[in-house]
Amino acid sequence: MIQVAVFGYGTVGSGVVEVIEKNKAEINKKAGEELNVKYILDLRDFPGDPYEDKVVHDVETILNDPEVQIICETMGGLKPAYDYTKRALLAGKSVCTSNKELVATHGPELIQIAHDNQCNYLFEASVGGGIPIIRPLNYSLTAEKIDAITGILNGTTNYILSKMEKEGADFADVLKEAQEKGYAERNPEADVEGYDACRKIAILSSLMCGKNVNYEDIYTEGITKITSTDFVYAKAMNKTIKLLAQSKEEDGKFYAMVSPCMIGMDHPLSMVNDVFNAVFVHGNMLGDSMYYGRGAGKLPTASAVVSDVVDCARHIGKVIMCFWDAEKVSLTGIEQASRKFFVRVSADKAQAAKETFGNVETVDANVTGEFAFVTDVMTEKEFNEKAEKVGIISRIRME
Amino acid sequence: MIQVAVFGYGTVGSGVVEVIEKNKAEINKKAGEELNVKYILDLRDFPGDPYEDKVVHDVETILNDPEVQIICETMGGLKPAYDYTKRALLAGKSVCTSNKELVATHGPELIQIAHDNQCNYLFEASVGGGIPIIRPLNYSLTAEKIDAITGILNGTTNYILSKMEKEGADFADVLKEAQEKGYAERNPEADVEGYDACRKIAILSSLMCGKNVNYEDIYTEGITKITSTDFVYAKAMNKTIKLLAQSKEEDGKFYAMVSPCMIGMDHPLSMVNDVFNAVFVHGNMLGDSMYYGRGAGKLPTASAVVSDVVDCARHIGKVIMCFWDAEKVSLTGIEQASRKFFVRVSADKAQAAKETFGNVETVDANVTGEFAFVTDVMTEKEFNEKAEKVGIISRIRME
Repeated sequence: MIQVAVFGYGTVGSGVVEVIEKNKAEINKKAGEELNVKYILDLRDFPGDPYEDKVVHDVETILNDPEVQIICETMGGLKPAYDYTKRALLAGKSVCTSNKELVATHGPELIQIAHDNQCNYLFEASVGGGIPIIRPLNYSLTAEKIDAITGILNGTTNYILSKMEKEGADFADVLKEAQEKGYAERNPEADVEGYDACRKIAILSSLMCGKNVNYEDIYTEGITKITSTDFVYAKAMNKTIKLLAQSKEEDGKFYAMVSPCMIGMDHPLSMVNDVFNAVFVHGNMLGDSMYYGRGAGKLPTASAVVSDVVDCARHIGKVIMCFWDAEKVSLTGIEQASRKFFVRVSADKAQAAKETFGNVETVDANVTGEFAFVTDVMTEKEFNEKAEKVGIISRIRME
Repeated sequence: MIQVAVFGYGTVGSGVVEVIEKNKAEINKKAGEELNVKYILDLRDFPGDPYEDKVVHDVETILNDPEVQIICETMGGLKPAYDYTKRALLAGKSVCTSNKELVATHGPELIQIAHDNQCNYLFEASVGGGIPIIRPLNYSLTAEKIDAITGILNGTTNYILSKMEKEGADFADVLKEAQEKGYAERNPEADVEGYDACRKIAILSSLMCGKNVNYEDIYTEGITKITSTDFVYAKAMNKTIKLLAQSKEEDGKFYAMVSPCMIGMDHPLSMVNDVFNAVFVHGNMLGDSMYYGRGAGKLPTASAVVSDVVDCARHIGKVIMCFWDAEKVSLTGIEQASRKFFVRVSADKAQAAKETFGNVETVDANVTGEFAFVTDVMTEKEFNEKAEKVGIISRIRME
């Protein structure tokens, strides 16, 4: 029997206990041994909960129990998760986490500590919820040179954008509704400003290149400025607007960005609606592949944590390969990246825009008082200079 | 250094050699050791080929060389692949294959022989070409009870159906064009009659339940009877027609089928066009997830074979888990499966159809001389009885 402890009995943590109980036949078969949740660490008590007798308040009880071999860290945040994780790994206990912030901030260090102590630090649940993406990158696409990853990595913003598209509604109204339904937090900043997606693409980018992509270096733009009018234009172009998290390696340069983008309705990512997430991966042999599923939610996320537990159980005392060195990747500044831009200007600036941007493609969506167009491919720097010269209403990157 | 041999220097086999050479930096890093192709087995000579000196004609040279630890079987067919694979595994050499026919026919036996000899029989490339699906099922979805798999598993038929949809063309014309372009074989039966998809869903179904699903037990219907008129109706219903390979476990009953189906344009599988493939997996915790990519082609398929080689290289002398027992699964006959059907009858039978099928939903697509409708949910048995009574033009299952 393998003893497991769960750190944090919130949504994901209680999901982990539920998944281990509900699917125990399948899980124990695949783990090759019976798993048992011995402790649940939480500051609170849970009177009446079927697992209330497993709840402990002192982390030392768990860290000092040599029987515990695997820990699920589902607390979130850096403190005290970082300290607890480090101490667990130093004690040779594997840690499986859903904590994207901790992985994005201290991933390579914790992986190294795990490997030095013949145990593992796994984080399948930290990106894409229940979508298997970390393990495919590490174990499946091993014959590929992966040169681009594009993801819809945040369920809240994708829900909001899907609703705005479907109902022609405005951002603020949909956000309010999403908050009432529990799809968005009362303080929605981490989601709508793209910070959550930024941490996730930092993790994927690091695995893509085997070195450390610092999330603070990634240009991040949220969806708060997207309006219902933008969707009117998108529809006229047979496109939609998605918050994309991207990283790309090109001619030795490494780009990463989180930003709303216009994508064609024939792109598989355009079909990823509501709270679903997807990750598009390009490899030099395989070409395009995509991984799609529920990017959040109690049970999908818990299922991903438990799949890591099964992996740890099968590798007690052995190190599972993971290439993510502490060496920092220098990202190329976004101002050097080239693409087309969708631009809106007031009608009186149509002529100036045409003159400044040159060869533009007009977008006609019957919006009065405006002139809208798509530029040629140009760098962000070049675009920003021209846009400032003309004075634009808004712009959205074309993917 | 790990010595590798390739059995069969055709499209996939030469792709394997190319991938190992082209991505050797990535591959050797992930394998943890340098891989070297020592032999290529083929009856032919390849004068002028950069690897011509590696070509041998006698399998004994390879089987008797203790240095060879991993074999890529890319010959296809049962003879002599079955015999060669068995002997290699008995000699403790791991085998990585793209041979779906061999895996579907002798999978559990070969896996058992491998495990008895502390080596591995891996077959990521046998289903979905370059899409990682075998490994996610075996390693990633380990906390799930998977209860349904639905796939677009054949690139040729998907190319044909996509073309028919886009161009309003008829099956025979598109097939001819696909043959000219090399997307369809001169003898297209294995693809267009669904036999290829059948073997692939047999493999996925077996992994889903851990027992053996015999491909000969799977109801299989091809796309040869689909017409341009069917697509006219599909469009009127905002649907499309795809060749789906499905398996489902429900109330202890296990269904599997290959058949053209109408699917809604909002279903992610409806976006899978041309030679792309996708596998939709439903788990009891995760809900829906999907894996999408190039289902065939030299380099994508070779990349999948080489990812297995990397896995074998990391597990020399160790068994990689794979649950696929020889115990046979009893499939429930398709006549017991329930669904809606799209039906076309000649105009003069409209009244009889309405009376016989009861509550039907008329489909209006301005096709003269016909009456078309969608039935209520009913079993295949019930449907067939009613259809025979009325005398129908055709029917397509609704998904």
